[in-house]
Amino acid sequence: MTELGYYNGKIGELSEMTVPMNDRACWFGDGVYEAGMCRNYHIFALDEHVDRLFRSAAMLEMTVPMDKQELKSLLNDLVRKMDTGDLLVYWQVTRGSGPRSHAFPEGPANLWVTLRPKTVNSQLGPVSVITDEDTRFLHCNIKTLNLIPSVMANEKAKRAGCYECVFYRQGNRVTECSHSNVHIMRDGVFYTAPTDELILPGIARAHLISACGQLGIPVREIPFTVDEMMQADEILTSSSTAPCVRVCRVNGQNVGMKRADLFDALHRAVFDEYFALTE
Amino acid sequence: MTELGYYNGKIGELSEMTVPMNDRACWFGDGVYEAGMCRNYHIFALDEHVDRLFRSAAMLEMTVPMDKQELKSLLNDLVRKMDTGDLLVYWQVTRGSGPRSHAFPEGPANLWVTLRPKTVNSQLGPVSVITDEDTRFLHCNIKTLNLIPSVMANEKAKRAGCYECVFYRQGNRVTECSHSNVHIMRDGVFYTAPTDELILPGIARAHLISACGQLGIPVREIPFTVDEMMQADEILTSSSTAPCVRVCRVNGQNVGMKRADLFDALHRAVFDEYFALTE
Repeated sequence: MTELGYYNGKIGELSEMTVPMNDRACWFGDGVYEAGMCRNYHIFALDEHVDRLFRSAAMLEMTVPMDKQELKSLLNDLVRKMDTGDLLVYWQVTRGSGPRSHAFPEGPANLWVTLRPKTVNSQLGPVSVITDEDTRFLHCNIKTLNLIPSVMANEKAKRAGCYECVFYRQGNRVTECSHSNVHIMRDGVFYTAPTDELILPGIARAHLISACGQLGIPVREIPFTVDEMMQADEILTSSSTAPCVRVCRVNGQNVGMKRADLFDALHRAVFDEYFALTE
Repeated sequence: MTELGYYNGKIGELSEMTVPMNDRACWFGDGVYEAGMCRNYHIFALDEHVDRLFRSAAMLEMTVPMDKQELKSLLNDLVRKMDTGDLLVYWQVTRGSGPRSHAFPEGPANLWVTLRPKTVNSQLGPVSVITDEDTRFLHCNIKTLNLIPSVMANEKAKRAGCYECVFYRQGNRVTECSHSNVHIMRDGVFYTAPTDELILPGIARAHLISACGQLGIPVREIPFTVDEMMQADEILTSSSTAPCVRVCRVNGQNVGMKRADLFDALHRAVFDEYFALTE
């Protein structure tokens, strides 16, 4: 298959798949999701993605309708049905179905999967970004389907010809981007916001931190400001689909790009691991 | 029909209706909605609901796929297909369909409608409520499908045997409830939070304010605190399905219930109007 959709055991071409109108995704965005890259039919960091899905679900008192091992087996089975092994593997759990009512439904949660051809973005960048105020809710550590502010910010970036929108709160504290984490390097140190309720604990972020460890680059998980970002030696973003992207411009102003040695080493380490684990 | 579902021109029994998996409601909760009461086949405050839907859509740069008059005609036509004229009329517009991507899609928005039997809650109360911190995003003036925090708060209230959860921010500023506005009365004055980005500009709220005008009750649209609520002479909530509900207990503590004369007059005015306009 080229593009696959899965819903509670039913499989079909994604563009032809339908779901019950009464799935709670439709009324409340009441669900959590994951998206990971697959290369050569190997899903990268699958354990970490599945663990995070279960954490997200637990934080919203949703029960994933199968155990972790069953979910991994299902995803691996679905991947093998595809014409290519280079895919974006996306899956979500929604809080069951029923006539619209805020109260939790009685029935089980629903499991959705989509598979679409995609290769990881290893050559992307350097990119331009914009900044905007972070008006999202205080549950950004949970990977939910309540994504309107991210949709609006991403569109704003796109219209400005930019790759991402960097969010800031409380005047000037940088949190993350519309669909990426953001990090800076200064004086040889890697800075990234701590994993509180204001950012998603990114899996690509965790792998970047691990790569820093291997390279002997000190890591500080503390908040940084927009001003500190503008003055940084390097700015980079990370997401599962684009795990190490260099930023050269913020709001039209040239930034970073001062430590090619460190950025290149990090970039190489991240992709060496990605390609090794998906051989 | 008993329960009707409508999606872009297709009509069926709600429980059997399906929608494309690629509708953006499914990935992002990317839509806006309205819900209003219908009695005797007359939709109450239809103009106001339709106006608010168009405002919500415009704030998120969505284009409702028909004009206001066409939408009203459609809703009125659908209502006439039903076995009873006492209904909850719910409709939403989602930002089109397409493979999951934050960027706006090219195609038109989608229109959904559901109709289910319901009568307005005129006898409900006095009720007990709880309070909880308002962790929602800063777009609560837009009636969106990004409702997870409201779902969680409503469930918390339900488990406590309560009708609603009153949200507060910034320490102790009362905003609204999980699916209602909340108001207090003190020294003969009706207080309600101003319509900024922290609350939905409720249509039932507007009708309550109008009823105060008719009754000579002064109205102040200014923020009030949890403490002020606890000390108020009366506390009441409003929503389209339950437009005037008296609160007798907050977090297990007896509150309000000191101006039955004013509450009763308001309650009577609200329902007199409702029944007169849906005769």
